Amino acid sequence: MFEKKTIGFIGLGVMGNSMAGHLLVAGHSLIVYTRSPAKAKALLDRGAEWAESPAALAPRCDVIITMVGLPSDVEEVYLGDKGLLVHARKGTLLIDMTTSSPDLAVRIYAEASAKGLKALDAPVSGGDTGARNATLTIMVGGDEDAFAEAEALFAIMGKTIVRQGGAGAGQHTKAANQICVAANLLGVVEALSYASASGLDPKRVLLSIGGGSAASWQLSSNAPRMLDGDFNPGFYAKHFLKDLRIALDSSKNLGLTLPLVALAESLFDKVQSRGWGERGTQILYELYRHGIV
Amino acid sequence: MFEKKTIGFIGLGVMGNSMAGHLLVAGHSLIVYTRSPAKAKALLDRGAEWAESPAALAPRCDVIITMVGLPSDVEEVYLGDKGLLVHARKGTLLIDMTTSSPDLAVRIYAEASAKGLKALDAPVSGGDTGARNATLTIMVGGDEDAFAEAEALFAIMGKTIVRQGGAGAGQHTKAANQICVAANLLGVVEALSYASASGLDPKRVLLSIGGGSAASWQLSSNAPRMLDGDFNPGFYAKHFLKDLRIALDSSKNLGLTLPLVALAESLFDKVQSRGWGERGTQILYELYRHGIV
Repeated sequence: MFEKKTIGFIGLGVMGNSMAGHLLVAGHSLIVYTRSPAKAKALLDRGAEWAESPAALAPRCDVIITMVGLPSDVEEVYLGDKGLLVHARKGTLLIDMTTSSPDLAVRIYAEASAKGLKALDAPVSGGDTGARNATLTIMVGGDEDAFAEAEALFAIMGKTIVRQGGAGAGQHTKAANQICVAANLLGVVEALSYASASGLDPKRVLLSIGGGSAASWQLSSNAPRMLDGDFNPGFYAKHFLKDLRIALDSSKNLGLTLPLVALAESLFDKVQSRGWGERGTQILYELYRHGIV
Repeated sequence: MFEKKTIGFIGLGVMGNSMAGHLLVAGHSLIVYTRSPAKAKALLDRGAEWAESPAALAPRCDVIITMVGLPSDVEEVYLGDKGLLVHARKGTLLIDMTTSSPDLAVRIYAEASAKGLKALDAPVSGGDTGARNATLTIMVGGDEDAFAEAEALFAIMGKTIVRQGGAGAGQHTKAANQICVAANLLGVVEALSYASASGLDPKRVLLSIGGGSAASWQLSSNAPRMLDGDFNPGFYAKHFLKDLRIALDSSKNLGLTLPLVALAESLFDKVQSRGWGERGTQILYELYRHGIV
């Protein structure tokens, strides 16, 4: 049974554009806002409506999905004077799919609940390809009834959809995901740096190390790009640095010492300082090649 | 065309026993030596001959394979007064399948060549399961003609067999493999530690992070063991520490800075100090759980 909803979508980057497009194709009404209006054009041509601000969008929607940049953007969109919590109708379901701070997600949940709004944190993995093909993994935190209400929408955008617990649990799960990504990426970079320095043919090395206990998605997908000098962004280094800072801050708040996360954050901080934030995460290989580690 | 050879096999641990057994089944004559004679019993019952020492074994063989413990063991077996280089017949093919130092492999190759012997370094990955099922990955360094001579024997023990270059290239490739393993393992441990500390159900987290950019063999195979408290050795922590020291020393000799390898070595040094060397590598999770990082 299809229940048509009016969905607000805030944040139309590469990911948001694809995700919102799927909701439109599925038959929902879509109202969009994004900081650079040009990015909304394709969706408007396909029937979405434009709102001049989050405040203008909020009261017109049953569900509002956000896919913005930094935790500070999330904070402004939800908690600012012109934000969603002030302007949404009672009963509205708010879903933040940005990768953001777990603590902020808990704060938004608490303030939303106090105002009779429902809130979920639901960050994703799978990148632009996953967004385009509607195969995203969606990691959800929040109340069960809000999750039940959102599930049909998630199914339009993603494939692996798991509620991981209460508010913040989606963001914590995404942080755990990024910790593995960081480790696997560092391993590939150090292994290839070593292979190259020791006189091996790194591409040939991949034939020997790709199929066993060293195997990872990073090794099979990112290593060939590094070796071909292809540093186009599958995932932006600057976004990964943001994610690592979230994981690092969050682990510190939990009283945890995670030296690998700290190492990864410091290396991507160097990547950023070098002016490589707009490259793909595989640019880390260049940091090692230049001996800036 | 099967060419029956007399093969000496030195070092009958879990791996060596399986590997030597495959050579026997294939129809080769086998002469064995290992430090604890009890470990040779099964092979002797199946028709292998016993030698009292490497020196006694060496002159009777066409090919000698070694699968011992530390680089210091390799050095003694090959370069000691009672070692293979002194006692093997001219033209004998020596294959060290121990994970050992690349520099030592180069030294053995040079000294062997000077004595009219052929030498290959050919460490493996795939563990006891790979050894038992003859599906090992074999990473080979040395001359092409020696590799051609050894290839039929490698095919009896392994599946993915690649000559990576001259002497030492097999060991360098194995070091690159272990760098990836170390990284992926650290990532899994820090991700699960984080998940647990943040109040998530770590097993449920695996449903969300197992299928995408965070995926690795370590995540799919070792994470469930950590969470079940199963620290039985698939691969011994003490052996992994040895491998990490080889990679770290070798990278320093190459003038490389590999902070992740240094971090992994320091953590497994703590594992060893804690008396956990006989556990599987997944015991690293316990180090974090006890906050000893």
